Amino acid sequence: MFLLDTFEIAGTVAFAISGALIGIRKELDIFGVIFLAITTAVGGGIFRDVFLGKTPPMAFVKPIYCLISILSALLTFIFHKKILKLKNIILIFDAIGLGAFTVIGSTTAMIGNMDKPFLVICMGLLTGIGGGILRDVFVKDIPLVFQREIYAIASVLGSTSLYYTYNNFKSISSLYMCFIITFAIRMIAVKYNLNLPVLKSGIHLEEHKACETEA
Amino acid sequence: MFLLDTFEIAGTVAFAISGALIGIRKELDIFGVIFLAITTAVGGGIFRDVFLGKTPPMAFVKPIYCLISILSALLTFIFHKKILKLKNIILIFDAIGLGAFTVIGSTTAMIGNMDKPFLVICMGLLTGIGGGILRDVFVKDIPLVFQREIYAIASVLGSTSLYYTYNNFKSISSLYMCFIITFAIRMIAVKYNLNLPVLKSGIHLEEHKACETEA
Amino acid sequence: MFLLDTFEIAGTVAFAISGALIGIRKELDIFGVIFLAITTAVGGGIFRDVFLGKTPPMAFVKPIYCLISILSALLTFIFHKKILKLKNIILIFDAIGLGAFTVIGSTTAMIGNMDKPFLVICMGLLTGIGGGILRDVFVKDIPLVFQREIYAIASVLGSTSLYYTYNNFKSISSLYMCFIITFAIRMIAVKYNLNLPVLKSGIHLEEHKACETEA
Repeated sequence: MFLLDTFEIAGTVAFAISGALIGIRKELDIFGVIFLAITTAVGGGIFRDVFLGKTPPMAFVKPIYCLISILSALLTFIFHKKILKLKNIILIFDAIGLGAFTVIGSTTAMIGNMDKPFLVICMGLLTGIGGGILRDVFVKDIPLVFQREIYAIASVLGSTSLYYTYNNFKSISSLYMCFIITFAIRMIAVKYNLNLPVLKSGIHLEEHKACETEA
Repeated sequence: MFLLDTFEIAGTVAFAISGALIGIRKELDIFGVIFLAITTAVGGGIFRDVFLGKTPPMAFVKPIYCLISILSALLTFIFHKKILKLKNIILIFDAIGLGAFTVIGSTTAMIGNMDKPFLVICMGLLTGIGGGILRDVFVKDIPLVFQREIYAIASVLGSTSLYYTYNNFKSISSLYMCFIITFAIRMIAVKYNLNLPVLKSGIHLEEHKACETEA
Repeated sequence: MFLLDTFEIAGTVAFAISGALIGIRKELDIFGVIFLAITTAVGGGIFRDVFLGKTPPMAFVKPIYCLISILSALLTFIFHKKILKLKNIILIFDAIGLGAFTVIGSTTAMIGNMDKPFLVICMGLLTGIGGGILRDVFVKDIPLVFQREIYAIASVLGSTSLYYTYNNFKSISSLYMCFIITFAIRMIAVKYNLNLPVLKSGIHLEEHKACETEA
């Protein structure tokens, strides 16, 4: 699992930097920047643990990933102009993170839940995208992952492959296959700028407002 | 309980459509639209289960309601112009959903907590309105349920009646009474366009800012 | 612990008033104002209990703090102009609340987790600032605690002192020291208008957008 640990660290750094950069852009203070970096990096995992009943969440018990996030945030705060130039590397690290977090989320969920594919896939996805959703909500953006690019779907396909191959072959190589599928789909989407369909609805706001329910 | 199951499905469809329509209006991509539909339909129930310590939440374990939400979202994505014309039916389904979700939330909470009326009422309310609150937060709207119309109060009155009648008479008819009270209050509010009081505060922003605390 | 109970009630009142005032300013209806007051006062504690696996959260089981919040919200709704004039008292009560909530959050976390300083500090902080973060997210503001003033850091220093002194001396006076440190740092920050550093980044939005990742 050494390789996956390395990937997880790379992903944590990328997620934390993405949170810190957005915090700096929104002119948060240093506490806000650090908080946003931590949220982006470990927020998805915290909610995964809560949903699985594994409390206290690992992020609080084993604070290494929070410390990596704090360090990444501080470095981003100091060297943010240099870090902005590294955008291609950050995109690659981010895709590595998406892959590693999907593997970790899915495998954590599988313990004791091998008969629940939907749960496993959701927990892989939540670990991959939950932190980014929280980050965007905290700074008043509609989560990017809802709006464009192939991102969540890469995680869903990765953890689906993990669930079915692991269930049949009980081999650790399922984990690497999940990582590669998630990472590859994400990188292809970045390279070719692929997006999911958006409806240009032309719904007139008035017309729609009347229909709106409070559910 | 067959009737209540039917009501729950109708409510899930209505809540999911409301999430999908708002997702389309905000020009989310197809993943975002589906995610928002699921959140609206099952988000309240997920947090209810987490607060009650019932993990993993039922929505992940028994994915039928998520699947209904996905299907509703896809149909809304394809036929959104036709669905917009069904606004009266959606409002009725939504009120059915509010009633059914309040019953389910309250009864789930009552197991092992018959001595905690406040918990029971809060869990009924959370199941009824939690998904809509999450939906609005995700797309950067102040939750509609905080702003106008009689909505939450219908759920509160329904689950209050459920708690006290069930506690005294131990009859299944308490569940139907809760449903009818919640549904009826909501429909009357829709028909007569009833709202709760809002204070036109005229608080000058400057004046108020000075007072603002960070709590 | 009588003194701490008094402080907790003062803090609950201050937090609830801050939520209610913001709700009134955003022109929420009376339900929204009450909901926001409750969220501000007990939201942090609810998530602390969930993260610690203590379900159902104390706020639902022992509704006294919710009732205090509802009462505070109603009084704020009726007398909001008079309450706006009490801003200095509210700021002091708010600092008392931050101190008391930090003590309660940290000590709740310490039960069974005496070997996990990071968890203890995070739970003290979450109890102190979580409600305010939720309040701001619900009304579409970037949380104030991320943007300016010395607030969170007071809580972090307070619970750090609590963890280390209690761990070494097992004395109840650690609790009062935590309260005094948190309260004093916060009041000094208010008096001298101290802020944490913010980076005036001058990041061009275009430049940055290209770098943005979806993590």
